[in-house]
Amino acid sequence: MTQGRDDIEGLIALMARLPGLGPRSARRAVLHLISKRGQLMAPLAEVMADVARNARECARCGNISGQPVCAICEDPKRATGEICVIEDVADLWAMERGHAFKGRYHVLGGTLSALDAIGPETLRIPDLLTRVESEGIGEVILALNATVEGQTTAHYIAEALEPMGVSVTSLAQGVPIGGELDYLDDGTIQAALRARKAF
Amino acid sequence: MTQGRDDIEGLIALMARLPGLGPRSARRAVLHLISKRGQLMAPLAEVMADVARNARECARCGNISGQPVCAICEDPKRATGEICVIEDVADLWAMERGHAFKGRYHVLGGTLSALDAIGPETLRIPDLLTRVESEGIGEVILALNATVEGQTTAHYIAEALEPMGVSVTSLAQGVPIGGELDYLDDGTIQAALRARKAF
Repeated sequence: MTQGRDDIEGLIALMARLPGLGPRSARRAVLHLISKRGQLMAPLAEVMADVARNARECARCGNISGQPVCAICEDPKRATGEICVIEDVADLWAMERGHAFKGRYHVLGGTLSALDAIGPETLRIPDLLTRVESEGIGEVILALNATVEGQTTAHYIAEALEPMGVSVTSLAQGVPIGGELDYLDDGTIQAALRARKAF
Repeated sequence: MTQGRDDIEGLIALMARLPGLGPRSARRAVLHLISKRGQLMAPLAEVMADVARNARECARCGNISGQPVCAICEDPKRATGEICVIEDVADLWAMERGHAFKGRYHVLGGTLSALDAIGPETLRIPDLLTRVESEGIGEVILALNATVEGQTTAHYIAEALEPMGVSVTSLAQGVPIGGELDYLDDGTIQAALRARKAF
């Protein structure tokens, strides 16, 4: 008799496990979904089931895709000589939103961490070295986050790539576009000053 | 070739339409779902499809349920002489979490608003009057929000119920449990003082 209510409770409990949603916002989201069950809830359930069935890691770069090899790796218009190394798929999407990079990616899946026992093998670093050799890569761009973990990982990869004679670069550090000096941390200001350019 | 990516984009666009989620948090949620596609994403899609198919408004009280008449209205253990009037299903759930009310509910679906052209008919107020008569109700508890709109609606309902000789009550106003006077608004302190009780 309470079947319907139990389903709704179950839905709320599952929604509450999403990052950024707690029990209260999950309840609000579920009520919103129910009030739009035709236009929003049914299509959302369907697309979600499709993605759950089809999404997988690209065998080459680690991007999320519906194919064994992702659209970026398969795209013949992407430059073949450059690999951009990022921590996770969210960073890959951020790079793509910038529309600035025309090469291919390599998703590490995290950063090195002795505490969490995350070593180079867990992070697809051996795969990266294999790709650099087999795909004839000329430049590896390290687009890791400007955190201690990100930079530690970047140094590790740069050292591993050194004997291979490939050019290793990293994203420039400086004042973000629209950034106000007064709100920037000291490290960013120091980095921007050290990397100053002729005006 | 980009099928998989398009599905993921579509999923993010739909998730971003949930209250409390924007494009960025929708992306985070989708990446989290994909990383747990077996334990979380597939079950979530399934329950969501079930609820989208089965959820409907209870024909009697307006609660959301999987049945034509909801479990609360069908429950023979609930007191039959009392109806608690609330604005929406979220408020019904909040009342149920309090475990204090043992009667049945009537969900208005909003508050009266001349600006938004929401009149008594839109709000199931005629249904309420019919229920009070046909179900032999002795007390109607108005548990509407303590906002201007909620209280306007409460006054309208109280007036409509007056000729029917039913007792009309409302939730007490005062200091919330755990509340500190310094953080309360003036209106609440005034209401609590006016309704003061012997200690």
